[in-house]
Amino acid sequence: MSFDFRSDTVTRPTAEMLQAMMNAPTGDDVFGDDPTVNALEAEVAAMLGKDAALFVPSGTMSNQLALRVHVGALDEVLCDHRAHIHVWEAGGIHALSGASVAAAAPSDGRFLSADDVSAHTRLDHCLYHQPVTRLLALENTLNGSVSSAVALAAAAARGAALGLATHLDGARLWNAAAASGAEPAEFAAPFDTVSVCLSKGLGAPVGSVLAGRAELIGRARHFRKMYGGGWRQAGLLAAAGRHALRHHRGRLTQDHEAAQCLADGLSELGFQVEPPETNMVWCNPPERLRVPFEEVQRSLAPQFLLGGAYQGPRGRNPWGSGSSLRFVTHMQTPISACKALIGALRKVIK
Amino acid sequence: MSFDFRSDTVTRPTAEMLQAMMNAPTGDDVFGDDPTVNALEAEVAAMLGKDAALFVPSGTMSNQLALRVHVGALDEVLCDHRAHIHVWEAGGIHALSGASVAAAAPSDGRFLSADDVSAHTRLDHCLYHQPVTRLLALENTLNGSVSSAVALAAAAARGAALGLATHLDGARLWNAAAASGAEPAEFAAPFDTVSVCLSKGLGAPVGSVLAGRAELIGRARHFRKMYGGGWRQAGLLAAAGRHALRHHRGRLTQDHEAAQCLADGLSELGFQVEPPETNMVWCNPPERLRVPFEEVQRSLAPQFLLGGAYQGPRGRNPWGSGSSLRFVTHMQTPISACKALIGALRKVIK
Amino acid sequence: MSFDFRSDTVTRPTAEMLQAMMNAPTGDDVFGDDPTVNALEAEVAAMLGKDAALFVPSGTMSNQLALRVHVGALDEVLCDHRAHIHVWEAGGIHALSGASVAAAAPSDGRFLSADDVSAHTRLDHCLYHQPVTRLLALENTLNGSVSSAVALAAAAARGAALGLATHLDGARLWNAAAASGAEPAEFAAPFDTVSVCLSKGLGAPVGSVLAGRAELIGRARHFRKMYGGGWRQAGLLAAAGRHALRHHRGRLTQDHEAAQCLADGLSELGFQVEPPETNMVWCNPPERLRVPFEEVQRSLAPQFLLGGAYQGPRGRNPWGSGSSLRFVTHMQTPISACKALIGALRKVIK
Amino acid sequence: MSFDFRSDTVTRPTAEMLQAMMNAPTGDDVFGDDPTVNALEAEVAAMLGKDAALFVPSGTMSNQLALRVHVGALDEVLCDHRAHIHVWEAGGIHALSGASVAAAAPSDGRFLSADDVSAHTRLDHCLYHQPVTRLLALENTLNGSVSSAVALAAAAARGAALGLATHLDGARLWNAAAASGAEPAEFAAPFDTVSVCLSKGLGAPVGSVLAGRAELIGRARHFRKMYGGGWRQAGLLAAAGRHALRHHRGRLTQDHEAAQCLADGLSELGFQVEPPETNMVWCNPPERLRVPFEEVQRSLAPQFLLGGAYQGPRGRNPWGSGSSLRFVTHMQTPISACKALIGALRKVIK
Repeated sequence: MSFDFRSDTVTRPTAEMLQAMMNAPTGDDVFGDDPTVNALEAEVAAMLGKDAALFVPSGTMSNQLALRVHVGALDEVLCDHRAHIHVWEAGGIHALSGASVAAAAPSDGRFLSADDVSAHTRLDHCLYHQPVTRLLALENTLNGSVSSAVALAAAAARGAALGLATHLDGARLWNAAAASGAEPAEFAAPFDTVSVCLSKGLGAPVGSVLAGRAELIGRARHFRKMYGGGWRQAGLLAAAGRHALRHHRGRLTQDHEAAQCLADGLSELGFQVEPPETNMVWCNPPERLRVPFEEVQRSLAPQFLLGGAYQGPRGRNPWGSGSSLRFVTHMQTPISACKALIGALRKVIK
Repeated sequence: MSFDFRSDTVTRPTAEMLQAMMNAPTGDDVFGDDPTVNALEAEVAAMLGKDAALFVPSGTMSNQLALRVHVGALDEVLCDHRAHIHVWEAGGIHALSGASVAAAAPSDGRFLSADDVSAHTRLDHCLYHQPVTRLLALENTLNGSVSSAVALAAAAARGAALGLATHLDGARLWNAAAASGAEPAEFAAPFDTVSVCLSKGLGAPVGSVLAGRAELIGRARHFRKMYGGGWRQAGLLAAAGRHALRHHRGRLTQDHEAAQCLADGLSELGFQVEPPETNMVWCNPPERLRVPFEEVQRSLAPQFLLGGAYQGPRGRNPWGSGSSLRFVTHMQTPISACKALIGALRKVIK
Repeated sequence: MSFDFRSDTVTRPTAEMLQAMMNAPTGDDVFGDDPTVNALEAEVAAMLGKDAALFVPSGTMSNQLALRVHVGALDEVLCDHRAHIHVWEAGGIHALSGASVAAAAPSDGRFLSADDVSAHTRLDHCLYHQPVTRLLALENTLNGSVSSAVALAAAAARGAALGLATHLDGARLWNAAAASGAEPAEFAAPFDTVSVCLSKGLGAPVGSVLAGRAELIGRARHFRKMYGGGWRQAGLLAAAGRHALRHHRGRLTQDHEAAQCLADGLSELGFQVEPPETNMVWCNPPERLRVPFEEVQRSLAPQFLLGGAYQGPRGRNPWGSGSSLRFVTHMQTPISACKALIGALRKVIK
Repeated sequence: MSFDFRSDTVTRPTAEMLQAMMNAPTGDDVFGDDPTVNALEAEVAAMLGKDAALFVPSGTMSNQLALRVHVGALDEVLCDHRAHIHVWEAGGIHALSGASVAAAAPSDGRFLSADDVSAHTRLDHCLYHQPVTRLLALENTLNGSVSSAVALAAAAARGAALGLATHLDGARLWNAAAASGAEPAEFAAPFDTVSVCLSKGLGAPVGSVLAGRAELIGRARHFRKMYGGGWRQAGLLAAAGRHALRHHRGRLTQDHEAAQCLADGLSELGFQVEPPETNMVWCNPPERLRVPFEEVQRSLAPQFLLGGAYQGPRGRNPWGSGSSLRFVTHMQTPISACKALIGALRKVIK
């Protein structure tokens, strides 16, 4: 068995999830009559306190559809400089929507505050020379850190007060909810649109959902067709998503505990570790291992070869953090796997 | 049990296909290490005689990625005026690629010939006032009609001789192959890129594949990520696709026979029917039923309510044909279902 | 002295126009304080009965800004199949705005009627597969033909009743007004935006104006900056435009008379000539001259070498008319020049 | 008489320039036969050591055409964080070209060095998640500062060695040449495309020129038509540009001297002034005048009301400098005007 700590993607659905998939009634989602997709969309909309929702193949599509619905040419999106929409979506914000980005660094180093929102919003086009801020896009969790529902709401409310549309990239919102004890709907309340992922920590094989007001989701549905996200018998995947929402949300705290276990072990091995807030562990190897850390990974037993950590691209550190390594825990990296990884690292490092 | 003749989408995978899905090894396709996706891509590439292939959520995405890779602003795409890329993809050819379209009517009323290609290609920008033709995009089957591999190759060769890139929308290429006895690779040979669907007649729940030269597919892969088609554990779906390729291609002729049965029955009922070439039946109801045909459908027993036929949008007939109704046969509309539909129609019409 | 009949572009401003240019107060239009530009914009807005106007470098920019303000992705523009925005603007409607085009042929062969507008408007996205018609863009004169203000208003009113925005490409609206006796404002009244050219028949060296409601023009001004149409001391050109509006509109009927003279002469020489309505003469050379007509032009005395006629691009006839040659009259092709051209042709043809 | 120090735009052509405009032969630039435009393009191409050149209405269009020719979706442009293309062109780099921007801060606080170029170039798409750097776009002068031809060449050479295309925004390249004694062609040599302005310090009313290899300029010419920069009798403006190139380049050092005079005077009045390198003076008013500086300007005699300084937009300082005020000198702000402004400020401040 191999453990993969690079990302919180789960390589195999559970037997129960597969059973749920096999039992699901399906239809043609392009015609809007796949009952399992429709049920999933209704459930997620309700769970996030929104009118409507749309099931799509990925978190990137969910975000990009939201961006496309909110902004276009002459518009600027205000987001954290580390935001997934800005750093990890291949420039789609520009190429698909034509918008500009104001990528801001939070003044507290963690999350954009209401005052940060005010400071970085540009409502004057400066004699037509500049785009105007039209959308505030926040993310929670962001690099594994949790913004409280209260703090998030304060920032979003400031954006709305300035006339901005608001979007929440909640790819890992379930983790934020699990870690903070707040309901997903509390986080979602102040936003016009919210994107959540059913894959990643939640453990469904594929799929994300965009929720919001009916007219926004209707327009996103039209763009989904254009982008090629209109899938046929998506009900099988929707069934996996429904199963995950019902049965896997409660266990996310286990991933957080596993991350803490990993963090503790890495600390003992001399790594500089940022205290994990959810299922991500950010760290730097001890000075003597910096350069050869790739070798360290290659020296691990095969089951850790692939999955030891993710080092991101060379050169510019796009994480926007001081850490160069990221471990992520999930359903298939239980505490026992974390201990095994630490043990394997200990041997190799010596 | 209900029968749906609107489209060749199959509402349920077979038990064997579900079993294949459950047994498939999976991984994270975003990291390129889902073994079942990789195997599917290699198989389709080989089957079409191309270097490389890319598994994507829909035929629209497959086509739109091909377009994006081949053309941009100042470029024009030459295609049939009924082409899916032109009529049914929400204007993505313009919005995503920025290209113009020359939507041509074949001089023989069936398929663009080599001479049609010459006649509609514009290589002169006319003092910078016009875009220049850069891509010839053909489709087979087109509205259910089959172009022979020889005729298709002649048109594509003319395009290539004029300096155009060439793309084949082969969403239903398997039907063309089944009907004509030629191999898919024969149809694919003269094209730079080919898109095929694993859903529709082939019966997989979701998924299409774009095949072509490695550098084109690499670039399409980059755009796939941007468009949100980079999915995680897509291996389950790839397994369904592999199963369909192995087990369902041989049975497509049964769908063609079912279509013929339907055509015969409709003829007897007084419909004007175009002779079907694959799994599509195009027809007009007899004069006296024209206006109230929607009522006719509503009068059918519930199992035919949804699925009696597809009438397309009102107003402009986007089919580009003289027929206003389309029936499509597939795995879940066997000859018995066709006979049942004819019987039900006979009762209602009287 | 040479005569150029290819287009109604005037190669030299008159001495009076140059004097007006020299005397004009100027400023920086990017800062909005060029008094001559401001005066021109106010005058044209008033002349067309609109709130506001914007001075831009070309008719293409004026049209493209209007399109950009009215439509985007998922939207379709309904226009005549011969419309300048569709045929002669290098595909900008797609590349800049992302919109699709429904290029319709008028049922009377001349201008889209109200019923044509209804027939070609698509308000249903057909299960998200198609764009939705959002803009009706008409043109007057169109290839030199005049639509009456009443007919134009009927078509535009139908578009508005269907919920479409409306734009008038009035590059040669002055000719339509001169030929029909109606005021420009009568033609402009039913449209949200109207574009007029100060060059072409009017004789200013450079410049067009887009007029409409203040918020539309404000947004067009923002896009103008992005497209690079924000020019500095444009007052000199605006002065030429103001001079042309004041002094050259009255003389347009002379161009129409010159066109009639040319038409008569060509007819006598055996050309098939469409009766001119304004300053354009469309014709086909007699059969025996068809192929060698380029040679005919080259055989003319040098002063007609450049300017004998415009033959358009080879291959597809983008004019959408049966005629292959176009002559255009203007300030520098008086009746005497027309007679001289006929004389020269007569000699060569013999 | 009023003096305008906001920008180096000249509100009136000189009498000699107007004479040159009146005497210029003109034609139709859309047909490519305006002899004065052709002569201007040939002259600028030669002056910059390039194959070909294109006359366009503004520096923004010139830059945006270059960007459009060099980059598109999935591509990233590396530039200074203060670059005009990034900050002052309304987001056109994204909306028109679909590209992303890496806006880098020079490590020496002045200009991107060769090592800065290496550090900020991203050639790895990071598993398809990120765009790839394709263009290095530099600017000289940048906010009035001069990069030497040698330093500029080193940075450009590094970009080229990394496989990047290279563009120079030389809107004020003439000032860089005048200040440093190097020829424009020396600055231009290492770049694929170079944009220069004939307005601004050079004093022509309107117009910029893009120079580069013939195939790049041909493609830019095609896009110029689409963007609406294809103008008709542009020869009058080209004549002004030719006159400016011939007669006004030599006098740019006078503007630099005037800027120095202004800087000295402002220093004496207690302003914090950055030492000017060309015709721009950046400064902060003394602490006690910070807030009410707008009132100070309003208190100036009318001739300074408009033109005292440019304060940029509120909120975020887009200049990327510590200074909040910018004065620019030009043909119509001689040393006497600078002294007059200082005198007027002195009175008001007291």
